[in-house]
Amino acid sequence: MADARFHRRVGPLRLGELAARVGATLSDGADPARLILDVAPLQTAGPDELSFFDNIKYVDVLAATRAGACILGPEHVGRAPPGVDLLVTPKAYRAYALAAQAFYPRAVLEPGVASSAMVDGSASLGEGCRVEAGAVIGANVEIGPRTLIGPNAVIGDGVAIGADCRIGACASLSHCLIGSRVSIYPGARIGQDGFGFAPDAGGHVKVPQLGRVIVHDDVEIGANTTIDRGSGPDTVIGAGTFIDNLVQIGHNVEIGRGCIIVAQVGISGSSRLGDFAMLGGQVGLAGHLSIGSGAKLAAQSGVMRDVPPGATMGGYPAVPIRDWHRQTAALARLAKKAGSS
Amino acid sequence: MADARFHRRVGPLRLGELAARVGATLSDGADPARLILDVAPLQTAGPDELSFFDNIKYVDVLAATRAGACILGPEHVGRAPPGVDLLVTPKAYRAYALAAQAFYPRAVLEPGVASSAMVDGSASLGEGCRVEAGAVIGANVEIGPRTLIGPNAVIGDGVAIGADCRIGACASLSHCLIGSRVSIYPGARIGQDGFGFAPDAGGHVKVPQLGRVIVHDDVEIGANTTIDRGSGPDTVIGAGTFIDNLVQIGHNVEIGRGCIIVAQVGISGSSRLGDFAMLGGQVGLAGHLSIGSGAKLAAQSGVMRDVPPGATMGGYPAVPIRDWHRQTAALARLAKKAGSS
Amino acid sequence: MADARFHRRVGPLRLGELAARVGATLSDGADPARLILDVAPLQTAGPDELSFFDNIKYVDVLAATRAGACILGPEHVGRAPPGVDLLVTPKAYRAYALAAQAFYPRAVLEPGVASSAMVDGSASLGEGCRVEAGAVIGANVEIGPRTLIGPNAVIGDGVAIGADCRIGACASLSHCLIGSRVSIYPGARIGQDGFGFAPDAGGHVKVPQLGRVIVHDDVEIGANTTIDRGSGPDTVIGAGTFIDNLVQIGHNVEIGRGCIIVAQVGISGSSRLGDFAMLGGQVGLAGHLSIGSGAKLAAQSGVMRDVPPGATMGGYPAVPIRDWHRQTAALARLAKKAGSS
Repeated sequence: MADARFHRRVGPLRLGELAARVGATLSDGADPARLILDVAPLQTAGPDELSFFDNIKYVDVLAATRAGACILGPEHVGRAPPGVDLLVTPKAYRAYALAAQAFYPRAVLEPGVASSAMVDGSASLGEGCRVEAGAVIGANVEIGPRTLIGPNAVIGDGVAIGADCRIGACASLSHCLIGSRVSIYPGARIGQDGFGFAPDAGGHVKVPQLGRVIVHDDVEIGANTTIDRGSGPDTVIGAGTFIDNLVQIGHNVEIGRGCIIVAQVGISGSSRLGDFAMLGGQVGLAGHLSIGSGAKLAAQSGVMRDVPPGATMGGYPAVPIRDWHRQTAALARLAKKAGSS
Repeated sequence: MADARFHRRVGPLRLGELAARVGATLSDGADPARLILDVAPLQTAGPDELSFFDNIKYVDVLAATRAGACILGPEHVGRAPPGVDLLVTPKAYRAYALAAQAFYPRAVLEPGVASSAMVDGSASLGEGCRVEAGAVIGANVEIGPRTLIGPNAVIGDGVAIGADCRIGACASLSHCLIGSRVSIYPGARIGQDGFGFAPDAGGHVKVPQLGRVIVHDDVEIGANTTIDRGSGPDTVIGAGTFIDNLVQIGHNVEIGRGCIIVAQVGISGSSRLGDFAMLGGQVGLAGHLSIGSGAKLAAQSGVMRDVPPGATMGGYPAVPIRDWHRQTAALARLAKKAGSS
Repeated sequence: MADARFHRRVGPLRLGELAARVGATLSDGADPARLILDVAPLQTAGPDELSFFDNIKYVDVLAATRAGACILGPEHVGRAPPGVDLLVTPKAYRAYALAAQAFYPRAVLEPGVASSAMVDGSASLGEGCRVEAGAVIGANVEIGPRTLIGPNAVIGDGVAIGADCRIGACASLSHCLIGSRVSIYPGARIGQDGFGFAPDAGGHVKVPQLGRVIVHDDVEIGANTTIDRGSGPDTVIGAGTFIDNLVQIGHNVEIGRGCIIVAQVGISGSSRLGDFAMLGGQVGLAGHLSIGSGAKLAAQSGVMRDVPPGATMGGYPAVPIRDWHRQTAALARLAKKAGSS
């Protein structure tokens, strides 16, 4: 079970209740009244615990599991050992996520403002907010209900934040409007002015960055990630987009809904992503590109041209993924031939 | 117009005054006394606003603009619709930057030290400085006039900062000397000891890092960028160099004047850049390299050898850019041929 | 000599004492009682200073040095000018590190808790700890003796930190257990929940991250580096591992002992590194990989498959380094041929 110093578990929960919450069907013979104490990995789960199976690589682990119950897809039902109660659903990992949330719900905020927090008199805090030690909240800031401002975080003048947000320790926000249910992780930097200047041998001239950062609802922004504000237009992060750690997002970038952007990606100024695009770790995008909805970019690829919707790309410079694999194979053959001759 | 919560505009300004400030010539028939209220993009600008045209890609937008006035190069004068007053200059983007600065000047600092700031008694602050909430200023720090220390920033013992600097929220500085008119963005880390040690199976042995970071005048250092101090020599950033977000600069690196270093670049220890070098996003440089003045390195390239002055390089490993393009094309042809056979 | 504002030197030290401390043998005729004032590079060292020679590239500098004494390997003894006292050891750089530590020992902490630090009443601080201005220490935190918590750092509820650690300015720790003699640099983010969710068109579902980060003894974690906690298992950093700046380490990653991880590396979730692996700058690792002990990965390489112990890899995608060099050469030839035809 999880370390109680850091994770508070509730329960036990009945199997039938769990199945309903996660949208799964109980297997024949399973007792809906059976009490489950916790979630656990297949390897370590015991008879009072619920596990899940979602990766065929671990089929032997499933066969040997001592878990009391297991979430899995309908196609895998026959693979579980007898005696394990099954919660069957085509979305097994999603169901596990919901089960784990049931045992480890997000802590309810204890409202209040730490005495060492510095909140400007003109700021407004919604009901149930919590402002932790050392946080700084500027003039005319508006914060919705039940939002948490972490220790030593800084919210600049005029920033608006919605309801049920979490702003991490030591993060800083300025020139931005943040939706509801947004999580901003520790050390993220939102809204500083972007890398905008007219290069000049006599001294580069800064272009005032007159836009904002607009973050829609249900967005996650990872630790130490940086998002610059727009230069005139805004920088926009669409609803439900998840951004990992140490990502750079330049000015005027527009990101659609539900995108997944893995750690250390860099998106240059004025590029646009459609909805549900997926960018692997360390991907780099040139500026002013258009990446279509549903496009997938392999980790570390370097994208210098527009990408059509639904395309999967890889390589440096990035090409359709099948071409990249062919290039990789062709180059290996060429080098081998040269080496043997 | 820009969101007044975040951006304070002045004006209106007369067209003639603007032309003089940005170094442009008014077109025939333009009324120097005409009042301009704001800057705006070509698409949205109205008759009281000033726009600019600098990218041939947007020539149709120029032809349809409703802007009252437009900055552009002498070669584009014929492309603007009649009725638009023109401010003509060969450096159109630079002129736009100056015009935007005229409407949105940098805020004058309201001097003062926040009551929650912690300033060591031995520190000296120049006239007109502002120290924001939660900032920590160590022993024997010296700060020049009109410098801003942002909220929750940390200035370590002995650090010296010049005049008219901006140190962002949550940034930390130690073991460094900073010139004047330097902007350090939120979360930047300057002066910590570098990655210097003698590798040893019995335990790597730290090498004391006995140098400093020297940042010359008019430098910009982006959000969450890290610059390690020298190991004995200093790490040096030349005057007028602009560094973007999430850049890593190792110990003993020396960067010349006016360089442009885009986000997520990594420069390994003891490498040197000449003046006005340009490094694209995510470029990586091995240690102990010499990159000549005016060299340009394409985004994501991996540089393992010295680069002569003025050269343009790309690829991994980096080669002259023309060779890289040829390699890319040759590999694509090879893979295609293999695929079709 | 080093800038006295930032670096405090002790001494002078006798040559014989230095030789003993660094594990070197004095050359014939050297006077063990000779007083040495400082360490310095070969180029600038004077007769009262100790230098070192470890890189054959600088053999001419050695020949011309005015240093009073020099550390070098037995194979280089004949290369030093007469009159320079030699400290001979096969581990010259390690010996220099120890000599520099002798002249510039780590400052002894002045114990105490700054009046502006916010320490929860339930936290326990070992003897000799120092908590600097603006630091925030949560409930039930346990900190060992002689540990430094830097200004504006944040230590989350329940975190345990061993003896003689240094936590840098503005760093934040949560959900983690930290060993002894660990240095965490400014702005590092340890223990936030990882990038774990079930992707779903109806809204990605967060998977509660129920593990911790375990950092063993003698680890270094660079500035603005991010280490996510495990999802159920822990994220583990082995004893004596050194991690540079701006590195990303995903959830459930396990890193062995004595590894060296250079700046801007990204290690995806659930990958494992053996002992003494070395990862060059900007290397990217896919998830669920196994990197064998002693493996070396060239800077910027993109690793998508397991790497056997002791292997050296490079390229994107990464292959054995010799193959990568062959591929690079073969591609250059191919492009040249195509260009000339």
